[in-house]
Amino acid sequence: MKSRSVHINCDMAESFGHFRTGDDYAILPFVDAVNIACGFHGGDPLTIKNVVIHALGLGKQIGAHPSYPDLVGFGRRFIEMTNEELSACLFYQICALKSITESLGGKLQHVKPHGALYNMAVKDPNTADVIINTIYKIDNKLKLIAPAVSQMSILAKKVGLDVLSEGFADRRYNKDGSLASRAIQGAVIESPELVLRQFQLLTKAKAETHDGMIIDIEADTICLHGDHPDVINSLQLIKKYFE
Amino acid sequence: MKSRSVHINCDMAESFGHFRTGDDYAILPFVDAVNIACGFHGGDPLTIKNVVIHALGLGKQIGAHPSYPDLVGFGRRFIEMTNEELSACLFYQICALKSITESLGGKLQHVKPHGALYNMAVKDPNTADVIINTIYKIDNKLKLIAPAVSQMSILAKKVGLDVLSEGFADRRYNKDGSLASRAIQGAVIESPELVLRQFQLLTKAKAETHDGMIIDIEADTICLHGDHPDVINSLQLIKKYFE
Amino acid sequence: MKSRSVHINCDMAESFGHFRTGDDYAILPFVDAVNIACGFHGGDPLTIKNVVIHALGLGKQIGAHPSYPDLVGFGRRFIEMTNEELSACLFYQICALKSITESLGGKLQHVKPHGALYNMAVKDPNTADVIINTIYKIDNKLKLIAPAVSQMSILAKKVGLDVLSEGFADRRYNKDGSLASRAIQGAVIESPELVLRQFQLLTKAKAETHDGMIIDIEADTICLHGDHPDVINSLQLIKKYFE
Amino acid sequence: MKSRSVHINCDMAESFGHFRTGDDYAILPFVDAVNIACGFHGGDPLTIKNVVIHALGLGKQIGAHPSYPDLVGFGRRFIEMTNEELSACLFYQICALKSITESLGGKLQHVKPHGALYNMAVKDPNTADVIINTIYKIDNKLKLIAPAVSQMSILAKKVGLDVLSEGFADRRYNKDGSLASRAIQGAVIESPELVLRQFQLLTKAKAETHDGMIIDIEADTICLHGDHPDVINSLQLIKKYFE
Repeated sequence: MKSRSVHINCDMAESFGHFRTGDDYAILPFVDAVNIACGFHGGDPLTIKNVVIHALGLGKQIGAHPSYPDLVGFGRRFIEMTNEELSACLFYQICALKSITESLGGKLQHVKPHGALYNMAVKDPNTADVIINTIYKIDNKLKLIAPAVSQMSILAKKVGLDVLSEGFADRRYNKDGSLASRAIQGAVIESPELVLRQFQLLTKAKAETHDGMIIDIEADTICLHGDHPDVINSLQLIKKYFE
Repeated sequence: MKSRSVHINCDMAESFGHFRTGDDYAILPFVDAVNIACGFHGGDPLTIKNVVIHALGLGKQIGAHPSYPDLVGFGRRFIEMTNEELSACLFYQICALKSITESLGGKLQHVKPHGALYNMAVKDPNTADVIINTIYKIDNKLKLIAPAVSQMSILAKKVGLDVLSEGFADRRYNKDGSLASRAIQGAVIESPELVLRQFQLLTKAKAETHDGMIIDIEADTICLHGDHPDVINSLQLIKKYFE
Repeated sequence: MKSRSVHINCDMAESFGHFRTGDDYAILPFVDAVNIACGFHGGDPLTIKNVVIHALGLGKQIGAHPSYPDLVGFGRRFIEMTNEELSACLFYQICALKSITESLGGKLQHVKPHGALYNMAVKDPNTADVIINTIYKIDNKLKLIAPAVSQMSILAKKVGLDVLSEGFADRRYNKDGSLASRAIQGAVIESPELVLRQFQLLTKAKAETHDGMIIDIEADTICLHGDHPDVINSLQLIKKYFE
Repeated sequence: MKSRSVHINCDMAESFGHFRTGDDYAILPFVDAVNIACGFHGGDPLTIKNVVIHALGLGKQIGAHPSYPDLVGFGRRFIEMTNEELSACLFYQICALKSITESLGGKLQHVKPHGALYNMAVKDPNTADVIINTIYKIDNKLKLIAPAVSQMSILAKKVGLDVLSEGFADRRYNKDGSLASRAIQGAVIESPELVLRQFQLLTKAKAETHDGMIIDIEADTICLHGDHPDVINSLQLIKKYFE
């Protein structure tokens, strides 16, 4: 899968103790980079450690996937935190993953905010600013995964943080290049054939909207969600196509 | 307070959001080393970050103070975890503190287990083994703070981890050198004058038991608990005496 | 304190395990009604049970004090929940307190939303609607404690829920009758003499704003915050004055 | 399934927000009684409310399924709580379920302790005593679900609490009538045909041990675990057989 133009990332280690979500070990071989839950929306210490060990064993790039502190809401709900609360909250999560990865013989490569935090940081300059400055302070060699068109990308480039522009193969878009809300019919792509189609478009810097238009989307890395039911079939189709 | 034979450590950053415990900023100037709560028995991300910043500014030694995962019980209750659960749980906490400290320009110096975990690891070789091996794997230069007479000390020396033997100035002992339970009358020393007396004994490798005997206790570092009501008065008395 | 026009309520049982906040047992004798934390912003099961037992023993009115689920933020941060999430979250908390109170021989009398939820429900009709309907469904004899001028009061009266209009003796107001934000200089009244003065005004349906104006405020019940440092002195002054 | 001698119970509402476990709605039609998670090992407020509504709609008996407070460990780990901590913790959980059920038009019928708490209360008289007295104080008409041979059963009968003796159709036993540990080969029965066989034995007051012996087990109610992969097939086989 390591062709020049195809880079796949996936959120991982989001299980919490007995509560399992996402078949991390089945997905790992298909992806290039993993975004590891840090314990605040999912990810207990044992799950995190084991997934990082396995991912490093397969030579995958490790990233931190920090969230608002909201286990019961899986980080998908906005929480009105002060800047210093949010910054410290991200600082703790990214630092935990950084040292876990290093202690297991690897190196933290990137950060991708999770859920409601990601969505807020796409459009809100203040949230984006807190994220970018917190990452920069921890390690200015860390890359940010974020949409090409987002407050996060703008601010990251301003301070000199590398950005991997992200597209989503299992989601459709709005005309302005933002993700269509999960509440909209057709926003989540379930059929592996249609996921492949969106994936192919993204490798050509295009994507399909929820109402059937083709728009421009810059994507250095393409995300598939590990908790979508057919993700393994989608990944196999993609792999077969690109080989 | 940096005389040759006096080294004071104190547990810190145990507040949790609005819930405050311990007057960290008042205590910091009096101590040499701080054991920073990691979020599992106390210690929210903002409290942790601010206390580490302040402690580094004063040149204090930073340590991690990991716990069983038990916020409502403040880590003072035994939880029957498997070895791999416990190891991962400690791994996460120590790694978080290590990278937080490094990102703020310092270096993690030591680890001191908290509460019920500390007490269990004094007497239970299996728990001690999990702790020692987890610390060793993260960084074999980390020191362990533990009682001289404990399974932790025995195992740490076996694998080659440096140990700072610990005495408690605000607690009395049993004849065998173990801490008298908080449930026993006189186990917790409250009067600053009596704390000073126990402190003085410890600097001479002695300590008083709850029933008035003097026993031998090796102590490279002496702990005062930051949440005891008169701790600042005790620390001032100690400072005055040793100057 | 049971004069015709004076009714005092106080938030209670907000401690969480080892983390103590508010001196509930010292405050209880001075107040008429208590709003009991339900475990989501504070209030562990043992604290809740013991405070309810003690309050019932003194013949106080027991109410539930439900919150957004946010322990680390003490319920003072808005969380963007769906209506059904918020309703279920309140349903659980109020039901817990209702049955705890009944099992201890009492009867739940009222509900007062906590922190950010209270503030949101003052101005947001949708949040107010979820609260009112959830209370009504559990027991339409439950009273609501809320500001006279608020979406909660409007909707409660519409569905036929009794409202106790609330004033705050330790806070100053804006001109429009809303509470001045804690961030504003003078918004929190600390001196017991000034708390008494605001209390006296409220018993005459008046209150002072943060910039010194006197406005009209209807108050069937007056709140003092149990975690303000001088609350016991304020309560003693008030008691002496009204006797 | 309502034959004279067959009564099936199942643990339910153990999902937590986004984290789903057990297919509650598919299982509900097959069972007579449900043990509802109370939020301490699983069970968020919305899940609890929805499952109780659905179960009441189908006329099922509702019980509370309280646990040690241990979300990440799913209540399967012993926690060393004081008697008053444990009692208050159970009091809160059972009261929450009692009032939730009543507010939705039903009546709480029984209590079944969960996981490590259940196992501890089988053998430890002190733990059993705390559970029995807490239930009795809330409502002495509540039934207890517990193994016939257990400290809980002995103490419940002593205070006059009704007991439904419980057998497990998807687990094998030790010779002494206790459950074989999940760690033992063959302790968990996975094949629906073998679950049916154990179920049939239990309806005749017999059961098979993990090493193939047939022992006597009194069972007024038979439990199947909702998170076992083939539970629906097992329930269908059982239903077909008993019709």
